[in-house]
Amino acid sequence: MLSATCLEKYRRVRQQTEELCQPLAIDDYQLQTMPDCSPPKWHLAHTTWFFETFLLAGNNPSYRPFHPRYNFLFNSYYEAVGERWPRPARGLLSRPTVEEVFAYRRAIDERMHEWLDPLSESSLESIRPVFELGLNHEQQHQELLLTDIKHAFSINPLRPVFSNSETGECSTDQRLHWLTFPAGVRQIGHIGASFAFDNESPTHSVFVPSFQISSNLVTNREFLAFIDDGGYRRPEFWLSDGWATCRRLDWSSPLYWEHDGGSWLQFTLGGMRSLSLDEPVCHVSFYEAEAFARWTGARLPTEAEWETAALDEKVIGIFLDSGRLHPAQSGGFFGNLWVWTASPYVAYPGYHPAAGALGEYNGKFMCNQMVLRGGSCATPADHIRPTYRNFFPPDARWQFSGIRLARDIA
Amino acid sequence: MLSATCLEKYRRVRQQTEELCQPLAIDDYQLQTMPDCSPPKWHLAHTTWFFETFLLAGNNPSYRPFHPRYNFLFNSYYEAVGERWPRPARGLLSRPTVEEVFAYRRAIDERMHEWLDPLSESSLESIRPVFELGLNHEQQHQELLLTDIKHAFSINPLRPVFSNSETGECSTDQRLHWLTFPAGVRQIGHIGASFAFDNESPTHSVFVPSFQISSNLVTNREFLAFIDDGGYRRPEFWLSDGWATCRRLDWSSPLYWEHDGGSWLQFTLGGMRSLSLDEPVCHVSFYEAEAFARWTGARLPTEAEWETAALDEKVIGIFLDSGRLHPAQSGGFFGNLWVWTASPYVAYPGYHPAAGALGEYNGKFMCNQMVLRGGSCATPADHIRPTYRNFFPPDARWQFSGIRLARDIA
Amino acid sequence: MLSATCLEKYRRVRQQTEELCQPLAIDDYQLQTMPDCSPPKWHLAHTTWFFETFLLAGNNPSYRPFHPRYNFLFNSYYEAVGERWPRPARGLLSRPTVEEVFAYRRAIDERMHEWLDPLSESSLESIRPVFELGLNHEQQHQELLLTDIKHAFSINPLRPVFSNSETGECSTDQRLHWLTFPAGVRQIGHIGASFAFDNESPTHSVFVPSFQISSNLVTNREFLAFIDDGGYRRPEFWLSDGWATCRRLDWSSPLYWEHDGGSWLQFTLGGMRSLSLDEPVCHVSFYEAEAFARWTGARLPTEAEWETAALDEKVIGIFLDSGRLHPAQSGGFFGNLWVWTASPYVAYPGYHPAAGALGEYNGKFMCNQMVLRGGSCATPADHIRPTYRNFFPPDARWQFSGIRLARDIA
Amino acid sequence: MLSATCLEKYRRVRQQTEELCQPLAIDDYQLQTMPDCSPPKWHLAHTTWFFETFLLAGNNPSYRPFHPRYNFLFNSYYEAVGERWPRPARGLLSRPTVEEVFAYRRAIDERMHEWLDPLSESSLESIRPVFELGLNHEQQHQELLLTDIKHAFSINPLRPVFSNSETGECSTDQRLHWLTFPAGVRQIGHIGASFAFDNESPTHSVFVPSFQISSNLVTNREFLAFIDDGGYRRPEFWLSDGWATCRRLDWSSPLYWEHDGGSWLQFTLGGMRSLSLDEPVCHVSFYEAEAFARWTGARLPTEAEWETAALDEKVIGIFLDSGRLHPAQSGGFFGNLWVWTASPYVAYPGYHPAAGALGEYNGKFMCNQMVLRGGSCATPADHIRPTYRNFFPPDARWQFSGIRLARDIA
Repeated sequence: MLSATCLEKYRRVRQQTEELCQPLAIDDYQLQTMPDCSPPKWHLAHTTWFFETFLLAGNNPSYRPFHPRYNFLFNSYYEAVGERWPRPARGLLSRPTVEEVFAYRRAIDERMHEWLDPLSESSLESIRPVFELGLNHEQQHQELLLTDIKHAFSINPLRPVFSNSETGECSTDQRLHWLTFPAGVRQIGHIGASFAFDNESPTHSVFVPSFQISSNLVTNREFLAFIDDGGYRRPEFWLSDGWATCRRLDWSSPLYWEHDGGSWLQFTLGGMRSLSLDEPVCHVSFYEAEAFARWTGARLPTEAEWETAALDEKVIGIFLDSGRLHPAQSGGFFGNLWVWTASPYVAYPGYHPAAGALGEYNGKFMCNQMVLRGGSCATPADHIRPTYRNFFPPDARWQFSGIRLARDIA
Repeated sequence: MLSATCLEKYRRVRQQTEELCQPLAIDDYQLQTMPDCSPPKWHLAHTTWFFETFLLAGNNPSYRPFHPRYNFLFNSYYEAVGERWPRPARGLLSRPTVEEVFAYRRAIDERMHEWLDPLSESSLESIRPVFELGLNHEQQHQELLLTDIKHAFSINPLRPVFSNSETGECSTDQRLHWLTFPAGVRQIGHIGASFAFDNESPTHSVFVPSFQISSNLVTNREFLAFIDDGGYRRPEFWLSDGWATCRRLDWSSPLYWEHDGGSWLQFTLGGMRSLSLDEPVCHVSFYEAEAFARWTGARLPTEAEWETAALDEKVIGIFLDSGRLHPAQSGGFFGNLWVWTASPYVAYPGYHPAAGALGEYNGKFMCNQMVLRGGSCATPADHIRPTYRNFFPPDARWQFSGIRLARDIA
Repeated sequence: MLSATCLEKYRRVRQQTEELCQPLAIDDYQLQTMPDCSPPKWHLAHTTWFFETFLLAGNNPSYRPFHPRYNFLFNSYYEAVGERWPRPARGLLSRPTVEEVFAYRRAIDERMHEWLDPLSESSLESIRPVFELGLNHEQQHQELLLTDIKHAFSINPLRPVFSNSETGECSTDQRLHWLTFPAGVRQIGHIGASFAFDNESPTHSVFVPSFQISSNLVTNREFLAFIDDGGYRRPEFWLSDGWATCRRLDWSSPLYWEHDGGSWLQFTLGGMRSLSLDEPVCHVSFYEAEAFARWTGARLPTEAEWETAALDEKVIGIFLDSGRLHPAQSGGFFGNLWVWTASPYVAYPGYHPAAGALGEYNGKFMCNQMVLRGGSCATPADHIRPTYRNFFPPDARWQFSGIRLARDIA
Repeated sequence: MLSATCLEKYRRVRQQTEELCQPLAIDDYQLQTMPDCSPPKWHLAHTTWFFETFLLAGNNPSYRPFHPRYNFLFNSYYEAVGERWPRPARGLLSRPTVEEVFAYRRAIDERMHEWLDPLSESSLESIRPVFELGLNHEQQHQELLLTDIKHAFSINPLRPVFSNSETGECSTDQRLHWLTFPAGVRQIGHIGASFAFDNESPTHSVFVPSFQISSNLVTNREFLAFIDDGGYRRPEFWLSDGWATCRRLDWSSPLYWEHDGGSWLQFTLGGMRSLSLDEPVCHVSFYEAEAFARWTGARLPTEAEWETAALDEKVIGIFLDSGRLHPAQSGGFFGNLWVWTASPYVAYPGYHPAAGALGEYNGKFMCNQMVLRGGSCATPADHIRPTYRNFFPPDARWQFSGIRLARDIA
């Protein structure tokens, strides 16, 4: 790895984050409309703090932080790094201002440059895992920045438009067909020298019974049939916790859908649109995905099934890079929408988180969450791979999450 | 009343509001750190909406609103005017932007000018009550804007400074003495043609037993003695609801005090300062005021007692106009700090709220609140008078509220 | 006061409490269906603890408590007496059993007898205030025992019947007329040697403007007209806090009313009954009473007005002693239903609570509550008097509370 | 299956439930000290309702229920059977009384006898699955009845004793050793004609890597070492949700432990006892079990590992039948304490819940819960088997739950 390559990668990822913020007014940078979301300003600062803390400070015992309180303000959840500003209150801080946060980014970018530039190849090699983690971490926050601002804009009665870039239909209207896989012991998980998160390792054997998996994502048309059949009013389709959530939050459609007279509208990053029936259904929770699957007589795939099916597929689809910021029915297993699997997020056999703060990155969340696979229209294209494990609680709906069905072979 | 006078008054009050915002960054305008507080942006828009709704639209059946959704966004609590954006969510709206809100102010100011300018004296006379209400309403929000931004800044670990205008000691260090008043039937409430809120009327007779009232506000030194004597740990001084609140919120000092090693600091609009012992104690709730009074063996004055004592006093003191934005011990009954009275906020005998939306201004809040009197360092000097009744719930601490003692005559 | 008289009084009051429990199954004694209510078992034990603590132990330094933990379990709210079992959890204790609680009562009754019997008249005189407080305290709990069990039974889908003693109509169907009183300074509060609670003192002068007060309680018929006119859906009648409570708790009628097809039913201590239109409306909060009054164009009386009107009236009406346990329209100012006044519960001028634990009896509750007057069908007849001040928070509905109107004289 | 056998089984199980209630006072039957727990009275009625609903009514279209409201009161969670009384309010119903509930049991027992007695063998065969489900269901509630009354008694300051039957030490003090199992594809799940719950099926292949599992349960001594090493104060051992729960609920030891001066006490069904160091640690949540395991450097077993290890073991250990009602270190994989596994509770491949209400028995809970294995000292001995899957949320502590460690083979 050459220092120039590193710097180029670093510049590109960092710049991409800031380009995403282009459509925002200063007023928008501080919005936090639910505890799960973070303000754009916080994403900008936190990703910067990550490089400062784990690379600049982590490799220089005499490093002097850019600001004495930023570690407190911009640490997300690393207990080993110390106390933090409470997550649900991230939207309550007007200072540092947006201008100051961009100045923070520039300052850390300069320090990164000064530090990386003279590094030898062998030194670069030793810091590569954390450096690449920092880049991938920032890419994750690019997606979150979009999903969080979508939520924030959605509740504003003025219905702000984030971006008008989505243009026209993109559906290829493929006929759904079932892809069939025989039973067998499969090798699951990441292998090789390229970057992957620790939760994708180690590779291990899983006995996967024979199964079928759908070639397509479930569409709005199909999901509307579920709604019209009383899907949100009939407990027999739902898990017990799902039904309780559905009643408590008074769900009657996916997030961001609105009934307007006789027709359905959908809030998108391009503002309110009429619902396109051929597009894949989006912003559903695991509970809704699971209930829908049960209603069809099928089920959700396990993550081993999904990985088995996706392993040899090309990683193509609608990603962040397309600028569309909205899913399409483009075929394939990647992009457009994360799909909920039937698998709770647990450690792979033999998994051990790293020692120290970075061991908290993934491992400590292995409870009460479900695995999602495949990436979405808000995921950078070079961020995804077949072994990638995303995870969210079963009631989460603000991510670009959809449904792909599987079924047993009789 | 001449149109020129009206316009001059209008311009002055409106301008004063905007001048108060001078120290704010755009980032600060959206802060809402508790449901009782509103963002500066909201104060700016709501006071404008008040003029638009009750004067421009109220006097012109064919009036076209500046923006179709602003009535929904900026109506505070007028049920008769329609649905509203929920109060605790005022900080969650990034749009309209600060720039757009200032444009709204300018547009309404122009419309007000165009409407008022050609009005005859007799027409002006007929709209005068609502016009003056609008100005006094905006002045009330000037004070709230300051108390709300003080709260918002206080929770920020960076401890922002709003204004450095407070300069030096201002204490006159008067010896406390008790002013004595004999028993008798007093005339309480507003009388005359000058402006007053409806809750100050009608004038009515109240039998006020003989009493003494302190010439001074209680100081930080005196309040510290209460703390040092276990004031926040000894239930015998507290009302039952007060003690429950004290325990639940873990109070151990007035709001904005912080213990730092051996000394006390206090957050002010000028940032963190060391506590000045001769200054009047500030940001206490009714519960704390009442507990302190009981500890001293005295009590809080009733509002009739306060008005009896203040009626012939000059309305001088530290007001918003001084730019100090912090109380001092300046003597007299006005300015510096609102003082809690022992009187629940109820209607005066014979009080009837006006018909229609403006009847909601004061009357519907006559329950579960306590009366405060005298104005504060954040009150415009020409906004206050001896009969003025302010009111807040007994646990409220974020206003500039202090303590003046009274006692029975043995 | 003779010891025999004391013992006779004591026996009578204590026995009356136990007789009230006659209809209860052991299963009923532990019910606590909301934090404001207490289980019958707790009432039985707490009133006993009161005598044990403030008379037996209070007058004998070497007194050995009946049980070492009962002071913790049965202290209601006396901070000076020590820690307590949390109020909302009173229904979670199965031990001591009902049998053990009755044994506790018998044991303390015996100790009281042994202690009182030989006391000299002068000794009796010195303990009389607390002794009579104990008896009046137990009478207050007799009423609470009934209101609490009524609430507990009301939520049970089996609709248990507590007592069938209410028989037939009792309404005298008097025409409503307004009683008129001229303005003047009135002497308000208790005077004389007979027992009264400390909050009824001292007597003091109040200037009471001229007013009219209704001879009758508001009836169900009248209240239904309010409901039919949209009373529970029109915010213009309500105080702001009242309207928020009405919306939050989804009120659409008084407590214990149920709509059944075309007609109204009402849960009573005699089970479900059809609503009698001529009976006085019952189980309304202060908020509902105030809204109803505003709807009629009248208002609620202040407590000084009520006392002025009731002072020379005979203390007759439907009380606990009638066994009816349900209000009737019997005329007069006493019994049937407590009436909400417009007066917040505050100290009378010159009031000072006693030192020590018994000073907590009334004084510390003088905030956030409204005064009620006159007693109810669940109040012992010899417990009430014209100066008696009852008090509950403005949203309380489970007491036997009704409405009497007043109005200004034009 | 003969009718006599059925009736004998039925009588035995039903009688065992009632015998468990022997030590209870009537006052104890209604206790519900947290929403997860149910009152003894409710357990007694609900298990009866199960037979009435799914056998008597389920096989007789013209069946007339014992009481028209009992279906509403005693349905636990079967959406298909209709509306239910809310679970957290089960302790608020004093009626039906204990006596009436026992009368309900007797009446249904008689109806069951009348119905079963004349049934032919083939008819019996057809109802056998539901009949056996009813018996196993009642056995599950026998365990819950004990864990729920333990919780209810534990919070009572009088520390009631449920049963004194536990006598002396029972520990065999075996040295811990690790049992080793090679990697391989294992057949997991129930097979054969004997009764098992639907969630134990179908049998299926699982690839289980090589592992070691402890021969013993973790002891109080071992767990104390974790506490003494700051186990409850060091986030590095905990899952993120676990740490949040630990902080929120202020955990510092297993449930029912109390620090008394220098030593630890433990509340048991025999009352407060001093903590026995050689006994297995009990009443820990999954979060604590997981944190403890991480602290030791080992981990929890997956359910496939546990089943692999237990499959050929004898089903012996301390069960309900011993009357001890407290765990011991008796060796073996069964009884004493349920052990938390690392496995979230999900469907086995090919699992499909039955149609209708009984399909809700297990399937709809397959989310947000963890699997426990092996049975406890409160489980009837004939109720358990190697494939048995119990499940509780990861924060549950009131069950008899403990820890067995596993580890990878290097």
